[in-house]
Amino acid sequence: MRQAGRYLPEYNATRKKAGSFMDLCRSSQYACEVTMQPIDRFGLDAAILFSDILTIPDAMGLELNFVEGHGPKFSKQIKDEKEIINLPDIDPTLELKYVEEAVSTIKKELNGSIPLIGFSGSPWTLACYMISGGSSKDDFLTARSWLYKKPKTLESLLKKLTTIIVDYCSMQHRAGADIIMLFDTWGGLLGENQFKKFSLKYMEKIVKDLHKEYPKLPVILFTKGGGNWVSEIAKTGCNVVGLDWTVDVTSVIKKIGKLCSLQGNLDPSVLLGDKVHIEKEIKSVIDKFTYNNFNTGHIFNLGHGISQFTPPENVECLVEAVKKYSSRAI
Amino acid sequence: MRQAGRYLPEYNATRKKAGSFMDLCRSSQYACEVTMQPIDRFGLDAAILFSDILTIPDAMGLELNFVEGHGPKFSKQIKDEKEIINLPDIDPTLELKYVEEAVSTIKKELNGSIPLIGFSGSPWTLACYMISGGSSKDDFLTARSWLYKKPKTLESLLKKLTTIIVDYCSMQHRAGADIIMLFDTWGGLLGENQFKKFSLKYMEKIVKDLHKEYPKLPVILFTKGGGNWVSEIAKTGCNVVGLDWTVDVTSVIKKIGKLCSLQGNLDPSVLLGDKVHIEKEIKSVIDKFTYNNFNTGHIFNLGHGISQFTPPENVECLVEAVKKYSSRAI
Repeated sequence: MRQAGRYLPEYNATRKKAGSFMDLCRSSQYACEVTMQPIDRFGLDAAILFSDILTIPDAMGLELNFVEGHGPKFSKQIKDEKEIINLPDIDPTLELKYVEEAVSTIKKELNGSIPLIGFSGSPWTLACYMISGGSSKDDFLTARSWLYKKPKTLESLLKKLTTIIVDYCSMQHRAGADIIMLFDTWGGLLGENQFKKFSLKYMEKIVKDLHKEYPKLPVILFTKGGGNWVSEIAKTGCNVVGLDWTVDVTSVIKKIGKLCSLQGNLDPSVLLGDKVHIEKEIKSVIDKFTYNNFNTGHIFNLGHGISQFTPPENVECLVEAVKKYSSRAI
Repeated sequence: MRQAGRYLPEYNATRKKAGSFMDLCRSSQYACEVTMQPIDRFGLDAAILFSDILTIPDAMGLELNFVEGHGPKFSKQIKDEKEIINLPDIDPTLELKYVEEAVSTIKKELNGSIPLIGFSGSPWTLACYMISGGSSKDDFLTARSWLYKKPKTLESLLKKLTTIIVDYCSMQHRAGADIIMLFDTWGGLLGENQFKKFSLKYMEKIVKDLHKEYPKLPVILFTKGGGNWVSEIAKTGCNVVGLDWTVDVTSVIKKIGKLCSLQGNLDPSVLLGDKVHIEKEIKSVIDKFTYNNFNTGHIFNLGHGISQFTPPENVECLVEAVKKYSSRAI
């Protein structure tokens, strides 16, 4: 997560050339350049498209900006049902053509060496940002208030986003993304029933729609703070469940058996330590995934985005440790 | 939670008179004034001391400030073991005398009408802020990195804080606080084993030390994001477990049986809705606590702090609904 990013000096150099963060995303040449940087430096075994989870609301007219030190902010905010009705039904192959171009440029550059992961935010996570107008200091309180006072309005927004996300992920797959990942960053802000009704239901629809068209396309679902609901997430038919760093892997394996593969779990803060501790923690994470002869597959990954303060040599140390302790060489 | 606060115009008026947020906390007269405001307005059945969870690190020399729109910030930050050793072993009856005075002033003003709740942050939560230097946009990544690279240093800080918190809560109780609540706001950022080792263990020590001296003092433990660990929290010997809004009350009651009382669970965002929905949700929360004839006590409360954007009349509506739907009048 955030494989390419501010912890890499070469990323910062490209970002400087490109202009704003969104300028970087919108240029297929620059997006390809930064996507390849961690691959070239660390020899990773999968690339992830450089983009942002908020490209869809941006293309719907909300105008995304990144204010230094304040995170994402929209120029417009969704306030009521009328505004949802008025949101354009965008066609990603038109309004988000720059993402399609970035994917195909990266795909060409990778030249079949390693798989490429495309992604989107989940409907609930996009709705959180759209209703709150950007990042939030209060756990997206305004968006959460819609769960109670405007559930129908919220559902119509989630439905609209679901359709667009299916089209968006299909487009990425056709352009060359071998795997699709949905980031449900704010699913953990919901109670269990709310999660099923306002987040999982729509992610399940996306998984099913993608698999109807592309039965062999692997789909990863990652709900931050969703450790309790791994069984329900696995039952959507997704191929991989992403785990944040707070999740107890043993109890996850007990719950899901061999239903699907797992990804993640390393606390990104481990990478702020020294190499001895990094190696120790990576061994510990890998060991956990051997519980009960779990052999449905573990994609080594962080449990959330990498910190901008991570020394790049610590990521190198991570890659070496993963190769050392994984049961077979990658 | 945040019973007195920015959602009340009378609070904002007092705050203006007092100066900074910390000036407000440090004046027993103003702290009493704002503590009483919601009591006078809504006829609540318990008062909570107006103060901040970060008074202890402030008194230890870190100098607490509140920057508008940015939350708490310390002038100094704890960087290593040497700085922990150099932190003064404060005596709350001296360095935090203003809190003692606030409690006794409020107690006098309440004149036996309703109980007064005193509080402190948990050791882990205080450590999070002290190591990260204030509020955090990255889930206290710097503090979490100590879990791996400096666990012994972190433990020595937690131990030091535990001793001070016991003294601090004892002082509040002697000055008139009838109940003590520990806010473990960031316990949910930990994995299960980490939670037990770096947060729960110290909270348990505080509960036991307080009960050794004051066997009848009710102690409430609230870990935000700690819904999975209610059994472990309940087994510390605390009298009440606080629940955030994401917790499934039925499964909590199944787990803890009649081991202790429960508090909380209403999503604060409910109070941004209209009165019909507020009443409906409050009935729904109260109904959940009747599962399996649960009769060990439910303290109605929000699942986290009230929003500054809450219309005061919605809190009035809450109080009426609680009185209407509770099995016995309060």
